[in-house]
Amino acid sequence: MSKLEDIVSLCKRRGFIFPGSDVYGGMAGTWDFGPLGVSLKRKIMDAWWHFWVDQRDDMYGVDAAILMNPKTWVASGHVATFADPLVECKECHGRFRADKLVNGATESISTEEFLAAKVKCPTCKKENWSEIKKFNMMFQTHVGPVEDDSAIAYLRPETAQGIFTNYRNVVDTIYPGLPFGLAQQGKAFRNEISPRDFILRDRECSQMEIEYFVRPEDWETEFEKMRQLQHQFLEDVMGLPAEKIHDLEVPPEDRAHYSKRTIDMMFDYPNGEEELMGLVYRADFDLMNVQRESGKSMEYRDKNTGESFVPHVIEPSIGVERLFLAVLSSAYAEEEGRIVLKLPENLAPYNYCVSPLLKNKPELVKKAREVYELLKQKYTFVTWDDSGNIGKRYKKQDEIGTPKCVVIDFETLEDGSVTVRDRDTTEQVRLKIEAL
Amino acid sequence: MSKLEDIVSLCKRRGFIFPGSDVYGGMAGTWDFGPLGVSLKRKIMDAWWHFWVDQRDDMYGVDAAILMNPKTWVASGHVATFADPLVECKECHGRFRADKLVNGATESISTEEFLAAKVKCPTCKKENWSEIKKFNMMFQTHVGPVEDDSAIAYLRPETAQGIFTNYRNVVDTIYPGLPFGLAQQGKAFRNEISPRDFILRDRECSQMEIEYFVRPEDWETEFEKMRQLQHQFLEDVMGLPAEKIHDLEVPPEDRAHYSKRTIDMMFDYPNGEEELMGLVYRADFDLMNVQRESGKSMEYRDKNTGESFVPHVIEPSIGVERLFLAVLSSAYAEEEGRIVLKLPENLAPYNYCVSPLLKNKPELVKKAREVYELLKQKYTFVTWDDSGNIGKRYKKQDEIGTPKCVVIDFETLEDGSVTVRDRDTTEQVRLKIEAL
Repeated sequence: MSKLEDIVSLCKRRGFIFPGSDVYGGMAGTWDFGPLGVSLKRKIMDAWWHFWVDQRDDMYGVDAAILMNPKTWVASGHVATFADPLVECKECHGRFRADKLVNGATESISTEEFLAAKVKCPTCKKENWSEIKKFNMMFQTHVGPVEDDSAIAYLRPETAQGIFTNYRNVVDTIYPGLPFGLAQQGKAFRNEISPRDFILRDRECSQMEIEYFVRPEDWETEFEKMRQLQHQFLEDVMGLPAEKIHDLEVPPEDRAHYSKRTIDMMFDYPNGEEELMGLVYRADFDLMNVQRESGKSMEYRDKNTGESFVPHVIEPSIGVERLFLAVLSSAYAEEEGRIVLKLPENLAPYNYCVSPLLKNKPELVKKAREVYELLKQKYTFVTWDDSGNIGKRYKKQDEIGTPKCVVIDFETLEDGSVTVRDRDTTEQVRLKIEAL
Repeated sequence: MSKLEDIVSLCKRRGFIFPGSDVYGGMAGTWDFGPLGVSLKRKIMDAWWHFWVDQRDDMYGVDAAILMNPKTWVASGHVATFADPLVECKECHGRFRADKLVNGATESISTEEFLAAKVKCPTCKKENWSEIKKFNMMFQTHVGPVEDDSAIAYLRPETAQGIFTNYRNVVDTIYPGLPFGLAQQGKAFRNEISPRDFILRDRECSQMEIEYFVRPEDWETEFEKMRQLQHQFLEDVMGLPAEKIHDLEVPPEDRAHYSKRTIDMMFDYPNGEEELMGLVYRADFDLMNVQRESGKSMEYRDKNTGESFVPHVIEPSIGVERLFLAVLSSAYAEEEGRIVLKLPENLAPYNYCVSPLLKNKPELVKKAREVYELLKQKYTFVTWDDSGNIGKRYKKQDEIGTPKCVVIDFETLEDGSVTVRDRDTTEQVRLKIEAL
């Protein structure tokens, strides 16, 4: 098994992540978070919000609906261009992403290029292909009781537009000084033709995005500040090793036409280097789109000088699942016959596990319960484990990343000391209960 | 204006809630949360999670995908019965909910009953109606690149099924003792024919649900415990006045056939009494549905006795938007020419507002900044306000529910004392900075 498969297996075995709708045979491209996974996911998302919004003076939250007015996606260009090259096998009617069937091909592959590559259908092994068709990756639905074009809506393919559509209202109500940022966490949907790579390329994901509005002349300084802060967040708050994060300066020919600078922060995932997050200077591209499509001014009036202009935007954007997998795979280790998740303490689902040495000794259980209640009041994230023997409990707590196991034994009843076992070193020390 | 309209107006004016996709002329039945609204919504949702999951030993989180295997909705009965009676005017082709056009009608209104009521079309005033048709309220979409029946999926109309589909995996991995609960927060979607009443009847909402699994013979005791805890949460944590919450014991003839007890907790909203949350004893209805449709056993093996049985379920279910509006409308007051949101301190977006008496006196601004930084470190939720004059700032902070305003003036520079103004009483006291 590859390391990624080991992690997928651990995720299912310990209740971090299950395949979506597992009981009904699954639902391709969706994943459900189990008890441990919810805990880790919440801590990641809360830490992000705390770092980027609560602790700062210049950031504000928004939380837009997933179903938006379809004009949003006309303005943003998604209706016209958010598409993958789809090809159909005329023999078995299997449908595939054309660029994934040809080595080294890109999303802009033409029918000619595809046919010239002479690939066979992965399903029926024949070679009888349709033309390449652009397949729009937005999920489509109908709103209200009339199924005609006027009622079409999409599941948002990104959260960013929910920020741009609220920019005007936020400026009119809160009127923050420049620079200021609007932050959002929420679901986004992409109808991937072939979802794959565990939670890296799923059809439903959670995004955490900031649109940071700046004076046009300040973009370079602010971009650099943002880049450094992103590293600080990833390394200090998420505990990711700096040497696994690589800033990829996207060359001009690969950048979107409106962007003067794009950095993809790449991460060494178990299966290779993949994008962890993106940092893009979007200039006034999005606000100008909204202004054109809505007919409403997106200008900002400077509080000091009184001049009016459309702010420029720097966008750091991160997928929760990508960050989740980066955290999980950095923490995952196999050593001396054990599997251990060396999660940072601020992200571990539980900070302590409390257990009585033997579960059939009521005096030990009673004392252990007291210690559990004490720690629970102080740290909240405390778990109780009296299953199997001590060795099995350590094994389980190692696999779910609990930093400290506290064991109550007969000595505890005599002198109030407990065994505290460290997840990373497996060392055990005796401590007084008050010292925990 | 009615009190509800006043609240809607405050929400927009101060950045709590904007109409969804407002800049593009809106999107019926959707609402976007602005900076203040996100703050309040997050605090409500976090307090719920803390109370029901983090603080307890018997509750675990799950977080299922919004897109689920369509079998889910066959098993749950939603495909067959989650529908409203739709009627069309043959003259103007307007579509309406039949039961909403006839006084006292219910959702099971027949075409005969409807025609007998002799109502006119609200749009064109004519009386030429179609038969009543059942309109399924689930939003439908297609997953993957093939638009045929096999690829149909729905936006989940409730979060509950995301818990039942994960029950088996949770029992197999975590194996909690009975009783235990699985808690989930997330979006749900209903294609309402006519969304209305602000955020009470929207097309997209957030739910907070628990499925509490119990031994069949314990249901009455556990139901009663749960009922009392719900009141504790609503009254002590959310700060809702007990006299505005009314437990409506749903009579047998109005209950779902599988439920032996249902309590709708009603709330006195500005526009009248409406359901705030539901508490339902669902017996083994849902797990038996999953068992039948999936062919997998939903039995739980008792850890002590070894006997196997399908647990029964008690479900407390609450809509975030309904709770949000209950909190907001209880807090809303107009008195002595001012509007004030008397939000509980644990839910107010900001705990403190700090401002210099005059913004053009650098020494006052500098000192105020120091106080701001000090409080921000201690309380996190602190806002800065140097706009307009002091009177305007108090007015604004009253409207967004900030409990305390701290003002730095020339006396502060001399003796380190500040003015602290109380939101609810409007009284001002002098305090030393250290005493804050």
